Amino acid sequence: MSKTPIKQLNASATDFERQLDALLAWESVSDHAVADTVAKILAEVKSQGDEALLRYTNQFDRLGASSMAELVIPKARLQEALSRISEEQRQALEVAAERVRRYHEHQKQESWSFTEADGTVLGQQVTAMERVGLYVPGGKASYPSSVLMNAMPAKVAGVDEVVMVVPTPDGEVNEMVFAAAAIADVDTVITVGGAQAVAALAYGTETVPKVDKIVGPGNIFVATAKRAVFGTVAIDMIAGPSEILVVCDGKTNPDWIAMDLFSQAEHDEQAQSILVCPDADFLAQVQDSVDRLLPTLAREAIARQSLTERGAFILVKDLAQAIEVSNRIAPEHLELSVEDPEALLPQVRHAGAIFMGRHTAEAIGDYCAGPNHVLPTSGTARFSSPLGVYDFQKRSSIINCSPQGASELGKVASVLARGESLEAHARSAEYRIKD
Amino acid sequence: MSKTPIKQLNASATDFERQLDALLAWESVSDHAVADTVAKILAEVKSQGDEALLRYTNQFDRLGASSMAELVIPKARLQEALSRISEEQRQALEVAAERVRRYHEHQKQESWSFTEADGTVLGQQVTAMERVGLYVPGGKASYPSSVLMNAMPAKVAGVDEVVMVVPTPDGEVNEMVFAAAAIADVDTVITVGGAQAVAALAYGTETVPKVDKIVGPGNIFVATAKRAVFGTVAIDMIAGPSEILVVCDGKTNPDWIAMDLFSQAEHDEQAQSILVCPDADFLAQVQDSVDRLLPTLAREAIARQSLTERGAFILVKDLAQAIEVSNRIAPEHLELSVEDPEALLPQVRHAGAIFMGRHTAEAIGDYCAGPNHVLPTSGTARFSSPLGVYDFQKRSSIINCSPQGASELGKVASVLARGESLEAHARSAEYRIKD
Repeated sequence: MSKTPIKQLNASATDFERQLDALLAWESVSDHAVADTVAKILAEVKSQGDEALLRYTNQFDRLGASSMAELVIPKARLQEALSRISEEQRQALEVAAERVRRYHEHQKQESWSFTEADGTVLGQQVTAMERVGLYVPGGKASYPSSVLMNAMPAKVAGVDEVVMVVPTPDGEVNEMVFAAAAIADVDTVITVGGAQAVAALAYGTETVPKVDKIVGPGNIFVATAKRAVFGTVAIDMIAGPSEILVVCDGKTNPDWIAMDLFSQAEHDEQAQSILVCPDADFLAQVQDSVDRLLPTLAREAIARQSLTERGAFILVKDLAQAIEVSNRIAPEHLELSVEDPEALLPQVRHAGAIFMGRHTAEAIGDYCAGPNHVLPTSGTARFSSPLGVYDFQKRSSIINCSPQGASELGKVASVLARGESLEAHARSAEYRIKD
Repeated sequence: MSKTPIKQLNASATDFERQLDALLAWESVSDHAVADTVAKILAEVKSQGDEALLRYTNQFDRLGASSMAELVIPKARLQEALSRISEEQRQALEVAAERVRRYHEHQKQESWSFTEADGTVLGQQVTAMERVGLYVPGGKASYPSSVLMNAMPAKVAGVDEVVMVVPTPDGEVNEMVFAAAAIADVDTVITVGGAQAVAALAYGTETVPKVDKIVGPGNIFVATAKRAVFGTVAIDMIAGPSEILVVCDGKTNPDWIAMDLFSQAEHDEQAQSILVCPDADFLAQVQDSVDRLLPTLAREAIARQSLTERGAFILVKDLAQAIEVSNRIAPEHLELSVEDPEALLPQVRHAGAIFMGRHTAEAIGDYCAGPNHVLPTSGTARFSSPLGVYDFQKRSSIINCSPQGASELGKVASVLARGESLEAHARSAEYRIKD
């Protein structure tokens, strides 16, 4: 049994901070050639519409479509996918979708207002976006679970139309993805991808309707295009590689912990799996489990590279220090594999999702627990949240001044506006002052 | 009395859509020279810290500071500003701050959870960001009201530290801005600005702490720098020119309406003021008011250019069509100067803030009604919201599976994970299945 070399850190070491920085260092690729290619594609789709979209799609996905109409998938075809997948798969998708829907309904924001003594009403009116674009990668990275996780919150929010784009390189269709689109009640599916699909969603073409927001993962061309159209439309965060941080008290089955680490590491070579534990003996046991189980994985090579290049075992003096380390990292996935996870929860300041207790495998959250699997990566949990219904709603402030309220507030506004040399602001408010 | 030429549109005209597109067309300046300058400044502040920040500050703001310490404003100096402004101004700031605080407390999001039949607990834990940067422009565009509007929601959210940067070109200090910072309880004030200040907040220097989010308005260098650091930190939207759309039933004093239009137009030449009304005679009356009142404005030249180049009067057949036009534009400020604004409200789909009734001047909302004056511009109200407490909070998903829940969900996760060829995900879930 060959040993898998995983970095060993000690949180009490004097240079721990420096070692941690080195461990976490990750730079997104920022390539001028990619940026230039994307800029050209965006400009052409913006000015030429369907013509450019069809040309790029035929070129990059090696298709021979003669019109965009061929790339619009009829609803009947999505329904058909439901009978092409196995009954077991269909049921699993339906259970997952129902749980995701039910959980996300708790996130729906409602309009609110209050009335002041003088009759002035203040509040916010919450409304859904009209149209949202959902990018789904094609080929091997095409995940039906992502269709559910991105589409369901928009549907729960009340978005009028969810437009899904998914490339079909060489014409290859993923029936599970189509089936998930049917179950999530996606309104429109168009088999285009890459920067050209992002451009079409952002600017609109004859066939692809212009949307208000684009969500969903994609390769570097898709990410670059999303960043470029940010402002014209809203976008979700640009995701980095997936990560998990497991805090364990040393009393979970070490095989379980090893497999939980693998479930991130198998995503891709850049994925990051970190185990934090106050028990050095347990770390050694997990190392044994890793060494024994890793060769049994279908995706062994990817997981091995991820673990040896980006993985780490961090020894801490107690669970309180473990949470300090976790807050410093702000992990996408935080697993609290301990006896009393509720006791640690109030100390957790930054994490995308928190998996509590020995039974809550992160993989359950990826698919069917209910919460979203689109989570902030690379420490961005410091300032961002799981994808949710709130991402597809927006607010309008409501201000309804009574005559009395307008008179009193007008006096205050007048002083402040004149202090900022904005005279028309002041006079507009002063018109509403009585006497 | 010279006539101010304002575009006249008719919403029932066959080419109205095209005319409206032309009216709204506005492109943010995208200048390669600016982008290159900003990239250089960001890189130098990132690698050299205070040294580069001090050098650029001395250069761009024409200062002679010998260390960054000189540019950190002691809290006592902020308190001193409260006694340097007039008593009337101080009271107006305090009234405004208190109203803004009270309104924003309604926006605070709370953690939530629910328990399923098998004991599984699902929810979200809501926490505040740790540290936020607030950019305040220097010189003439330095608005104390912006300090309140940006800092108060962060404070209400429970952010640990609000770091404000404000340049002092030629050493010029705005006492009202310092006073507003004192009232809003801003934690740290540093007199730096431009792209170098954005870089310092995003990356941290010896003196400037690294923040999680940067908010606040700025010039093209600041906006370009914010866009560049988006992802490293969160940012608010990049604002375009300010706009107002007034829907009037023709029964408000036309002088009031003219002044409301001026209150946007006086901001800058790019600001946009639009009046929508079903009464052609009333539009003519407002035109008369504009012609008569415009010459009496301190900022006449700016307002005149704004109104003639970007303003418009749009004749509609009824108020329902007025709201259709408004939704098409998705204005930053929507004034419903009508008899029964509540009747129109449910039809309003996209607007930053809605000012209801004849007495609610937009200027009151700018300063002291309570709602935020940082609002989505240029049609981005289709997908974004007023700045709020929610912009300084973030969420962590909570998943706590009971052994029974983990067993049932593990079966579903296993099927879906294997369908995506993610075997370690499946096996991690399967460990938790009780047979």
